[in-house]
Formats: sequence, C-alpha cells, structure tokens
Amino acid sequence: MSADGDALDEVTPELVQRIEDALADDRRDEVRSLLADMSAAGQADVLEQVSEAQRDALVDILKGDLDPEALTELDEEVLEDVLDQLDSKEIAAAAHELEADDAASILEELPEDERREVLAELPADERADIERALSYPEGSAGRMMQRSLVKVPQSWSVGRVIDYCREAGDLPDDVYDLFVIDRSGRLRGSVPLGRMLRSKRPVQILDIVDPDIPSVPVTADQAEVAHLFRDQNLVSCPVVDDKGRLVGVIMVDDVVDVIDEEAEEDLLKMGGVGIDDMHAGTVRTVRLRGVWLAVNLLTAVIASLVIGQFEDAIEKIVALAVLMPIVASMGGNAGTQTVTVAVRALAMGELTPANALRFIAKEFAVGGLNGILFALLMGGAVVAWYHDWRLGAVIGAAMICNLTAAALAGTLIPIGLQKFGVDPAVSSTVFLTTVTDVIGFLAFLGLATLFLL
Amino acid sequence: MSADGDALDEVTPELVQRIEDALADDRRDEVRSLLADMSAAGQADVLEQVSEAQRDALVDILKGDLDPEALTELDEEVLEDVLDQLDSKEIAAAAHELEADDAASILEELPEDERREVLAELPADERADIERALSYPEGSAGRMMQRSLVKVPQSWSVGRVIDYCREAGDLPDDVYDLFVIDRSGRLRGSVPLGRMLRSKRPVQILDIVDPDIPSVPVTADQAEVAHLFRDQNLVSCPVVDDKGRLVGVIMVDDVVDVIDEEAEEDLLKMGGVGIDDMHAGTVRTVRLRGVWLAVNLLTAVIASLVIGQFEDAIEKIVALAVLMPIVASMGGNAGTQTVTVAVRALAMGELTPANALRFIAKEFAVGGLNGILFALLMGGAVVAWYHDWRLGAVIGAAMICNLTAAALAGTLIPIGLQKFGVDPAVSSTVFLTTVTDVIGFLAFLGLATLFLL
Repeated sequence: MSADGDALDEVTPELVQRIEDALADDRRDEVRSLLADMSAAGQADVLEQVSEAQRDALVDILKGDLDPEALTELDEEVLEDVLDQLDSKEIAAAAHELEADDAASILEELPEDERREVLAELPADERADIERALSYPEGSAGRMMQRSLVKVPQSWSVGRVIDYCREAGDLPDDVYDLFVIDRSGRLRGSVPLGRMLRSKRPVQILDIVDPDIPSVPVTADQAEVAHLFRDQNLVSCPVVDDKGRLVGVIMVDDVVDVIDEEAEEDLLKMGGVGIDDMHAGTVRTVRLRGVWLAVNLLTAVIASLVIGQFEDAIEKIVALAVLMPIVASMGGNAGTQTVTVAVRALAMGELTPANALRFIAKEFAVGGLNGILFALLMGGAVVAWYHDWRLGAVIGAAMICNLTAAALAGTLIPIGLQKFGVDPAVSSTVFLTTVTDVIGFLAFLGLATLFLL
Repeated sequence: MSADGDALDEVTPELVQRIEDALADDRRDEVRSLLADMSAAGQADVLEQVSEAQRDALVDILKGDLDPEALTELDEEVLEDVLDQLDSKEIAAAAHELEADDAASILEELPEDERREVLAELPADERADIERALSYPEGSAGRMMQRSLVKVPQSWSVGRVIDYCREAGDLPDDVYDLFVIDRSGRLRGSVPLGRMLRSKRPVQILDIVDPDIPSVPVTADQAEVAHLFRDQNLVSCPVVDDKGRLVGVIMVDDVVDVIDEEAEEDLLKMGGVGIDDMHAGTVRTVRLRGVWLAVNLLTAVIASLVIGQFEDAIEKIVALAVLMPIVASMGGNAGTQTVTVAVRALAMGELTPANALRFIAKEFAVGGLNGILFALLMGGAVVAWYHDWRLGAVIGAAMICNLTAAALAGTLIPIGLQKFGVDPAVSSTVFLTTVTDVIGFLAFLGLATLFLL
C-alpha cells in the first residue's frame, strides 16, 4: 500500500445498499465476501446501519468471520442484539481473542447465568483476568486498564531489557513505554521505547527512567482519567493499587472512547434523550423519551397554572395572550445559552468555586444587557403594532425581568445541582424552563394587570 | 514519585485562591513560586480561571517561567489575551520551544504584521517549518501534523536502524513508530518500536514492516482524521502529499484536542452559543448571543402572528390561552429530542442515506405513539379540570398533530441542512421550534375554532 485515503470512508452508503440487497435475496456467499475482509470498525459500522432483522441475518451468516474487535466498537443496544444471536461457545471464542478489558466490557452486557457459561468455556488464566476486570466498578480505571504490559526491575541494564524482550517475544506491538518497578512491585517510573532504542546496552535503566510520571489509582473514575490524559497529552498511563503497586496500564485509544462517550452523554442528556437512543427499538424509545416529556409536561402545566391566575386580564386585553409566549420563549432561549456554557464548563473543570462568582456576575450582566436590548426592540415593535405605549412598556419590563432571571437560573441551577451530586446535564434545562416560563408569564401578565387594567 | 493520584487535580480552588490573594497583595515572588513548577496544563488552568486583569498581572510576573506548552492548552480568547501581554521576542522564544504545528497554532492568532515580526526572530529552518504549517488550511491534516519523525530506507536492517537512532541521538521520546520509505520518499509502511526492539539485528526492515497502515492526505479535514483515529484505534498516523510521499505524522494527543473541540462545538452550537463564549468579554458575549436571540425572536413573533389570527376564539374561551403553551412546549421538547439524536448521528457518520428512511420512520412512530400517550393524558386532565370533553378532545388531537410534526421536522430539518452544506448543529433548533410553535398554536386554536365556537 501507499497513501490509503480511501480508508477514510470504508463503509459507503452504496456498500450498505449492496449488502442489504444481497441479504434480501439471501445471497449468503456474497454477503460473506463483502464483509469478511472489512476492518473491525467497518463491520461494526455496517452492523449499526442495517435494520434489526438484517443485523440478525448478518450475524447468522458471518459467525466466524465476525472480527471480535468489531464487538468492542458497537453501541450497547446493538451489541446486546448481536450477542443474542451468538451462543456461549461463540462468545467465548470472541472473548478469547480480545484483551481482558475489552472482553469484560462485552461480557458485562450478558445476563449473569450466560456470562458464567461463557467464562466456563475460557482457559483458567483468561477467565481469571476477565473476572478481575469485572470486579472493578463500571467506569473505573480498573475496568479500563489492560493487564498486559512490560515491567522490568530497576536493577537491570538496557542490554538486559532488550535481551529479555527478544527472548520473551511477547512484547505486544502496542507497547510504547516500559515500566520500571522496585522489589515490592511498586512503580518507580517509565522509559519510552524510543529512549530505550537509542540508549547503549550498558546503560542502567535507573539512569534513563522518568521517575515523575503520572499514574492513576485503580479506583479512579474514567472521567478523571480522561481529564489527566487530555491535560498531560499522555499516550499511556500506569494504574496502581492502594499500595502503589503497578497493576495495569490504560491506553489512549480506550480514553478516546471515554471522551467520545462523555461528550455524547452531555449532548444527548441536554437534549432529553439517553445514550443508546439511536439504536433502541421504537417501544423502548417511546418509553425512555416519554419519561422526559412527562417531566416537561409538568413544567408546562405549572406555567399554565400561572396563566390561569390572569384569565380576567386576558379576557379584557386579548393581545396579552398573543404576546405572552414571546416573553417566555426569549427567557428560555437566553437561559439555555447560559446553561449550555455552564454545563460544559463544569464538565471540563473550567467552572470551579474559584471563579464561580465571576462567572455568575458576567452572566448576570449579559442577561441584563440583552434584556434591555430586546426590551427596547420588542417594546418598540409592540407600540408600533398595537399603538399602545403602556403595553410596550409592560412587555419591555417583563423582558428585562425574564432575561435577568434566566441568567441567574442558568448559572445557579447547574452549579447547585453539581453541588448536590446531581448531573447538571440531565436536569438543568427542565428547572430552567420552569423558571423562565413562570417568571415570563408572571412578570408580563402581572405587570399588565397592575398597569393596564 | 510513586502513585501520584494527586496529579488528577493539580489546580485546586484553594490554590487559585492563594494565587489571587498573592496577586492582590502584589507578592510577586510568591506568585512566581506557586506557578513556576506547575505543569503546562496546570498553568493553563490557572490562566483560564482568573479574571482578565489578574491574568495580565500573572503573565507580567511569569514571563520566562511561563511554560510555552501552556500556550497550546489555552482557549482561543484567553490565548489572544496572553499574547497581547508578550512582545515579539518573548513569543518567538516560546515558539522556538514548541513543535512547528503547535507554534503555528499560536502564531495564527496574531495579526499579520506581528506574526511577521515573530517569525523574523526565529532561526531560518524553524521559520520555514512554521510557515509551511501555516500554508495549510486551518483544520487540515497538514496543520495538525508534526514534521519531526523517523523515516528509514526500506533497504536497511534492524541493526542499522538501531545504530542510526543511537548515533543521530535525535529520536524524540514521543516516537512510537518508525516509518519506512522507498527511494522516492513514498511511504512503504511502519514498524512499531516494540517490534523493532524485540527483533534481532540482522533482520531486514522489509521483513517486519506493516505495509497495510492507514495514512491521510495532507489536505484531509481534521474531523475525518479524528474519525480514522477513532475507528482504527491509532496512536499515530502518517501524512502523505499528493504523490504519496511521507511529509509528517499526526499524533493522537492532537486528535484528542480535535475530538474535544468538535464535541464542544456541537454542544455549544445546539445551545445557541459560540465556542469561546466562556472566556469572551461581556460585551462580545452580549453581541454574539444577541444575534442568536434575535433569530429566536423572529420565531416567537411568527408564532404570535399565528395566535393573533385567533383573537376571537381566545376572547370567547379564555382557557385556550391558558392551555395553548402546553401544546407548543410539548412539541418543542419532543422535537428537540429527535433533533439531538439526528445531529449527533450525522456528526458521527451513523446517519447516512443508507439508513435515513428507517431513521425517519422510527422517529415518526415514536412521535405518533408519544403523541397518542400525551393526548390521552392531557386530554383527560383537561376534561377533569374544565369539565368539557370537547376541549379535552381538541387538545388531545392538537397534541398528536404537533408531536408527529415535531418528529418529521426533527429528522428532515437536520438531514436537509446537512444536504445543503449547512451545519445542522447550528440552526436545526430554530427551524424546529418555528415548526412546533406554529403547528402547535395552529392545530390547537384552529381545531378549537372549528369545534368549540
């Protein structure tokens, strides 16, 4: 090969179409030949893009030609579906090909009894590794790490290490650092392979070791691990137990998955959907989204109750009903801007107690200034529209109230939720729109009642 | 060191407070000692968390103690602010310490004339490297790649490569693969360092080379590059020119930055804010967000015009004004769920022409089913509340209309925008809420006019 730009889009819509056509006509050999030589990521892409029935047929045709790595690339809902099509022996054969951490991430999707059956099919040492990985809590460094790494005693020389690697012959291709340990197995530092390669054989390992490398405890949360990799531009990071002993290593590609997952989670949560929404079945999606819509319905009903208090005013001045959604909607939009910035800043560790006051003050100023701006704009428009300067003044004043309230709610709600251990991405917008709807209708209809009736 | 879990949060709020106190009392030596030994990421964290005035004072105190790497970690707005405090010589000194790609990413923030001054301070070869990086379009593989890499002729043996690395002595610590080229400089493949280390000296490089490695053209977009790294779990990827010649290498840590940036962009755009919002000044923020709010105001006014058509109905049945925001808001929320899933799926390449119809059909079904569900719920509540079964039937029917419309708009709008080359993350929600507000008010008030008056 040389320049292989085509790898950038291995799975084209046309290819998926050809596979679907071949499936429809039950041309099994053609399906197999289209998928067998594909990369793991490509196979996973195809499995995610076809319908559930087509997916089942595909897995049935592929079986042994399914790259075990493809399983690790699948979204959870799709993975469960594929695993349903495989028996314990087939899943065990796949797990056997994978690193223990990847195998564990697949086996955790199985029901308890089927997982036991799969584990029973595996050699004792692999079973032990996978069970150890499964013993760490989901989303912890222990679950992310792989145990295959190269550790060398601190007393060795470069030559001895190289000879050891050549003899052992089990140095994996994706090792980038050797780890140096003391006699009790505690991590003393690391040596990048490049430095090893350019050092002369008699040099002592201790003379070229980096002693100041970051490491993470086995219990660390995956978000913290991702933060560390990001900050320090790491490619791999050793994992230590509570005694400082080296137990595994986390590689950057697993961290990329975590970063993707967390970014996706925040985006989807803010939009009121769950992480597996895209691949969940219709009924399950209806249920999951329905819960969120029900919470929002409550918000809308509260807002209606507020409006209900002003039926008299609306009956007398029907223009109030025409204009009131504008005030509420502008507050909701301005508040969403603030909440979005706050949620992202909290997730990235950029909004902390050290700068929270400054952040709130800025949002308050922005909300107030935009409030004045749109008060003038909308007030002017209403005066021109209804030839009633008092109505214009009321909508302007309500706009300022609501945009200021939106700024305060948009900062205080996510910060408060985070403080009480609630994920601000999930519930901030519901609380926010409750505030902006209630304040919006209350300010506009209340001021109208006071000054226009 | 051993287990250094503390590296996980180097910059605590308490530390920022101490720095701010020291700044307030002008204890410059204390400030310097607090920051000088910090990691680059730590310094960047502090610079982002203090106020603009404090930041200027900090840069003034630090100067030479500022880690050039810290500049590469700063958000754009903060970076511009810091660069304002440094003269050309100081910026050139920092650029001198950095890889050409990182230096270019900093210099691109400078105005044309100051950039020229800085470049003039640099040695000719570094200047040429940075200028070459700047010649590639922003966001391209050419801009991301670094030029320092190790390439070896395909005719060499392992021993000769090792000797070359030892003699040249310029093998950087962060090299993980050696690249093999033919006589015209074209990429022939790569050898992971680990494999090099465990191979015996007489082995020929061509016998251990991976010929089937992915590479990217120098013009590839950074989003495509990120996609490739993600799919193939790469740590580094060679970059080739249009003749297939090796010109650079992209490392995974730069890709992590891109992934972060793109995820952040999508989240912030959906929330109606720009990427640098958090660190922009108040006035700039007011202006940027104001534009978005003005667009939304237009939407709200269109909705009001619809309501205005039904003033008679509202005057006769004021309950319509009380209930109408519920229909519009439920449509908006259901539509936002659909848009969020669609935007993310489009960004990740999971929603393609191959499965678009299936995606739309599912969303339509979900919208319809949730519409029926909430029609029953809300219709029942209205009957209980107002003792008017016809009003309940009208709100129920309007709910079904609007949630179905929301599902269609929520899928068709982002897919359509993407087709016409418009970023769906930016403008989908505005179009969506226009649809759900208009359909919501129109269906509810229209049906009420037909059946209740």
